[in-house]
Amino acid sequence: MRQLCKGNVAVMKGAVLAGCRAYYGYPITPASEIAESAALYLPQVGGTFLQAESEVAAINMVYGAAAAGVRAMSASSGPGLSLMQEGISYIAGAELPCVIVDVMRGGPGLGNIAPEQSDYFAMVKGGGHGSYHNIVLAPASVQEMADFTMLAFELADLYRNPAVVLTDAFVGQMIEPLDLEYAEAKLPEKPWAVKGTVETRKNLIASIFLEPDQLEEHNHKMDEKYARAQAEEPRYEVFEAADAEILLVGYGIVSRVLRSAVEEARKDGLRVGLFRPVTLWPFPSQALAEASARAQKVLVVELSSGQMVEDVRLAINGKVPVEFYGRSGGNVPSVEEIHAQLVAHMGAKVS
Amino acid sequence: MRQLCKGNVAVMKGAVLAGCRAYYGYPITPASEIAESAALYLPQVGGTFLQAESEVAAINMVYGAAAAGVRAMSASSGPGLSLMQEGISYIAGAELPCVIVDVMRGGPGLGNIAPEQSDYFAMVKGGGHGSYHNIVLAPASVQEMADFTMLAFELADLYRNPAVVLTDAFVGQMIEPLDLEYAEAKLPEKPWAVKGTVETRKNLIASIFLEPDQLEEHNHKMDEKYARAQAEEPRYEVFEAADAEILLVGYGIVSRVLRSAVEEARKDGLRVGLFRPVTLWPFPSQALAEASARAQKVLVVELSSGQMVEDVRLAINGKVPVEFYGRSGGNVPSVEEIHAQLVAHMGAKVS
Amino acid sequence: MRQLCKGNVAVMKGAVLAGCRAYYGYPITPASEIAESAALYLPQVGGTFLQAESEVAAINMVYGAAAAGVRAMSASSGPGLSLMQEGISYIAGAELPCVIVDVMRGGPGLGNIAPEQSDYFAMVKGGGHGSYHNIVLAPASVQEMADFTMLAFELADLYRNPAVVLTDAFVGQMIEPLDLEYAEAKLPEKPWAVKGTVETRKNLIASIFLEPDQLEEHNHKMDEKYARAQAEEPRYEVFEAADAEILLVGYGIVSRVLRSAVEEARKDGLRVGLFRPVTLWPFPSQALAEASARAQKVLVVELSSGQMVEDVRLAINGKVPVEFYGRSGGNVPSVEEIHAQLVAHMGAKVS
Amino acid sequence: MRQLCKGNVAVMKGAVLAGCRAYYGYPITPASEIAESAALYLPQVGGTFLQAESEVAAINMVYGAAAAGVRAMSASSGPGLSLMQEGISYIAGAELPCVIVDVMRGGPGLGNIAPEQSDYFAMVKGGGHGSYHNIVLAPASVQEMADFTMLAFELADLYRNPAVVLTDAFVGQMIEPLDLEYAEAKLPEKPWAVKGTVETRKNLIASIFLEPDQLEEHNHKMDEKYARAQAEEPRYEVFEAADAEILLVGYGIVSRVLRSAVEEARKDGLRVGLFRPVTLWPFPSQALAEASARAQKVLVVELSSGQMVEDVRLAINGKVPVEFYGRSGGNVPSVEEIHAQLVAHMGAKVS
Repeated sequence: MRQLCKGNVAVMKGAVLAGCRAYYGYPITPASEIAESAALYLPQVGGTFLQAESEVAAINMVYGAAAAGVRAMSASSGPGLSLMQEGISYIAGAELPCVIVDVMRGGPGLGNIAPEQSDYFAMVKGGGHGSYHNIVLAPASVQEMADFTMLAFELADLYRNPAVVLTDAFVGQMIEPLDLEYAEAKLPEKPWAVKGTVETRKNLIASIFLEPDQLEEHNHKMDEKYARAQAEEPRYEVFEAADAEILLVGYGIVSRVLRSAVEEARKDGLRVGLFRPVTLWPFPSQALAEASARAQKVLVVELSSGQMVEDVRLAINGKVPVEFYGRSGGNVPSVEEIHAQLVAHMGAKVS
Repeated sequence: MRQLCKGNVAVMKGAVLAGCRAYYGYPITPASEIAESAALYLPQVGGTFLQAESEVAAINMVYGAAAAGVRAMSASSGPGLSLMQEGISYIAGAELPCVIVDVMRGGPGLGNIAPEQSDYFAMVKGGGHGSYHNIVLAPASVQEMADFTMLAFELADLYRNPAVVLTDAFVGQMIEPLDLEYAEAKLPEKPWAVKGTVETRKNLIASIFLEPDQLEEHNHKMDEKYARAQAEEPRYEVFEAADAEILLVGYGIVSRVLRSAVEEARKDGLRVGLFRPVTLWPFPSQALAEASARAQKVLVVELSSGQMVEDVRLAINGKVPVEFYGRSGGNVPSVEEIHAQLVAHMGAKVS
Repeated sequence: MRQLCKGNVAVMKGAVLAGCRAYYGYPITPASEIAESAALYLPQVGGTFLQAESEVAAINMVYGAAAAGVRAMSASSGPGLSLMQEGISYIAGAELPCVIVDVMRGGPGLGNIAPEQSDYFAMVKGGGHGSYHNIVLAPASVQEMADFTMLAFELADLYRNPAVVLTDAFVGQMIEPLDLEYAEAKLPEKPWAVKGTVETRKNLIASIFLEPDQLEEHNHKMDEKYARAQAEEPRYEVFEAADAEILLVGYGIVSRVLRSAVEEARKDGLRVGLFRPVTLWPFPSQALAEASARAQKVLVVELSSGQMVEDVRLAINGKVPVEFYGRSGGNVPSVEEIHAQLVAHMGAKVS
Repeated sequence: MRQLCKGNVAVMKGAVLAGCRAYYGYPITPASEIAESAALYLPQVGGTFLQAESEVAAINMVYGAAAAGVRAMSASSGPGLSLMQEGISYIAGAELPCVIVDVMRGGPGLGNIAPEQSDYFAMVKGGGHGSYHNIVLAPASVQEMADFTMLAFELADLYRNPAVVLTDAFVGQMIEPLDLEYAEAKLPEKPWAVKGTVETRKNLIASIFLEPDQLEEHNHKMDEKYARAQAEEPRYEVFEAADAEILLVGYGIVSRVLRSAVEEARKDGLRVGLFRPVTLWPFPSQALAEASARAQKVLVVELSSGQMVEDVRLAINGKVPVEFYGRSGGNVPSVEEIHAQLVAHMGAKVS
């Protein structure tokens, strides 16, 4: 079914179609429509919406529901996500699947409610304690808000790990066409869950391993699944990269601006391409290394002071110069602004 | 005065000498002796110790005391630090000085209470939301627990930014000689503080900037001070690096094991050196690039699945191969274990 | 249907039959089976069971559900009820119906988990702030645990006021036959509720009246309904009172011991009767005054240091001497113990 | 020293002079000036002022400080006091001294911030669980706000029990002359306190007594001290009662209105007197019975729907008719209003 839909609402449409039946959260601009949609949709399908007393409580409720085998989620913006870091670390440590949506706003601190991408480090590197990774997907459209939420539930279950939909106030608030196919979600068996039944009575969900050797073994097991995810799950888009002298790199809403900038640049005869990471973790490092191999310069654009640029540099490992252009505080660069950057960089190269 | 002292206790001795007069925290193993010492020492010097109802409350009390111009601190271990991420982001956004001690334990989740270094990402990359950096110091001895805590208060005030003492259960719990000079702390003027006086009535401490241009300007101002810190504050130690074929890199307790391994290796005629980052942010990238320039391999050792290794790779930028060896769950590698790694790596090189 | 049932479980059987569809609470011995039963039964009838983060939260959730027109309840024991006093006062002030079950245990403070009747003042006089009354019903059997819970929902709706089932660890934990008729509850219309619909958008649920005249008018309106309840709702049982020289007065489990003591006394030719208040508020003052008119002494027995005895004295107003016999700490007097009291009192009279 | 002072401020001046060195609270109108004064005065004498995160936390902090032997207090209005009922019951159960000030406002629920006396039941009968009593003092002037606070600390220590200063928005907000003598408080020894010293290590502060006999014994011990207080501590004022046909009874601000009404009535030749309870618990029952013995009618006036009137009736026990006149919602009766009541009542008598 085709419909006009706001990005944040699309998240919950996707979630419900993915079989999500539990939402725990605390409202915050610019993520609140996700909670509102959850409150509207979940009771209609026999699910639970609960506004928790705080984000700390919300993420621990997600922990509980996930432990019971239910597809569960929360959503917030930066300040709320910071409050959830302990819970996320516990969920990752207990190897439980869940989906968390971060509709990024200006920071740090209270900041403002306009779009930024400055939670990258917190969500991709792991803002909580201990060695773990979130699976992180970065949608750039309303359609992807729904699709990636559904994918996030799949990957969360596949890897028994938190999966994050990392988006921003721009994508969350915009309204675009959305195509959804209403089909019954195929839910995986979860024989490890604690369901209050005789069969699952022996199951133990824990993030405590008192003996060092035992915890190290647990961490090795987690590392192995992370290595598997790094081998199999990187996702990305490449556009006009084959002959690009300058390869632009950006994710989320920025990738759409950059794509338009590539089109504009190509009209002017400038050989510019785009690499858009779709998964931020696992980061598509190998694909980026290949896509940038023939470029003379890589230009990373972010709505921050520079965070993903580190993963770009790690991927390229010194083979091509990597430059950074950032905006923040809610300012999103225009196509013209990027064009001017391109001209400056290519002119600099020529001279 | 020379005395035998436990690492965690040395933290508070340093803090009191540095003029710290407010401690807010919630106890957690293996950091609890810091709270105990704070409860013992601070009232003796007219200071405040308060056990908060949670880590969320504790860090917000630190925010308040710091806003009033008091040298204030908290301490915890991984789970508690995760709960403080929102508050830390707010303190950084409001440009307030404070000191936070993280005595790292095994993670993720509840994990265990043995040493790890797996909060590196959370503390160095910034586990909270928005573009900010913590200044991060990594002591490796009881003496440094005191000295770096004092230094942390100096740097926090100098940059009006949170400064983190990132240590672990090993350094926190061990007992070593400690030399302290009892001198009156020289406290800087803080004309920006809100002291409840007529003069400071106009002062405003905030982390909210509703207009995007205003927030971006604020972020640029923060970026400038971060650039200044990156230019002036990197600290490190180099040992036997000049002719090293293999350069070991490790911080905190690991650096002491590596130094012994270097000494052992040199006895065997193996040309091995050590680079020890003392500041983890700003990371001593340039010094490391120089120290590793003539090496054939860099081997990073951490008590984690690999976190600082990313900063090492960013510093070296592909010029020398960077390998990683990690232990976790509370296991600390022995000198022999590192020696075996060195032989394997150098043998591999020869063959 | 006739079945063997525990008192606390009977509460929830009655609640579900009464159309209760929302339970919010925090477990505490000796009331926990009520929460357990709620967790078991309510989802089966499309209702909500939620274990709140505290009793403070639980009673405020009851407030919310009651405002939405749902038959809602909570249950706890003394310490939990104390934490609910603010919420109960708010619910009464907002004129909302709800049912609260207090399974009294030994107090004050943490006390112990054995039966007492020492929350009488808190529940009957109103432990919260402001002039309000709870309707209070005191069951003495498993059958009454179910029946009075159902009645409590009826009275709560009729008077738009909290109704309390005041019972104790003895009645809550004992197992007896229970007869229940499974019939659809007839729920009253609640045109005043806030249901999230267009029709109820104008409805306002509030306990705030800023202008003194406005609040006084509100209080007068409440006083009028309390006067109506005092005229129409007093309930009690009288046993062998017509010719009694000594009239025993006791409620709940005590009334059963007293009834046996009356039977024993009558066998010995002692003219003893029993007055059992069933509603503690409104207190059956007039009926008690009449029943005691020809007695020479009234002996009140409570599991406390003496609380209901004040309402007995107020009812009798000096016309007959009122004596008190109490046990506490979880001790329940035996029939023999009461018999000895009777003999002593009657002997005293004779001599 | 003589000074003009607001009632709420006088409370803290008295508290500091009484040696109070710890205040924990959460602000609420019309009690907030007490917290403000505590924040101002206590640090000047080396004491602690702490704004807690809630009233529940505040009263538990009072518990802790009282257990350590410090004279500690809190203050609030009705809604806050309701939240403290669990803590008060625990403090009473643990036999700890503390002072709690209730500046009563309009209720129930949020009500308003104008004066009422409707927390009488909650504070005098015991709004918390279990058999305990608060000592309750009812000041009627700014001078008494200071004096009774000082007395409350004395009685609290003497009986190891919470002592309540029960006042209202009128007395709390009014400004009158205050005479204070600055003298060092004589603090009693508290060998039972837990002071973190070797000597007090064996001391145990508890409100838990698992065995029924043990708890009953504890309750009997408490009952004995309550009986002692009832024998020794009732305080009251009598004015023109000797030949009064109508005896007015009122406490706090009402007693001042009633005194003026007596003076007015006497000018008109009406034989009217006043009985003012100063302690509400222990209630001066015997003195009231004596003072009313020759009256033809007792008229109780309260700022509520009638609460203290029950204690008046219990004291008089049917010997004289007891009538009630109440105002609420923040309305305080005028002298003329009481005069009209007197005329009506005496007229009724004559006819």
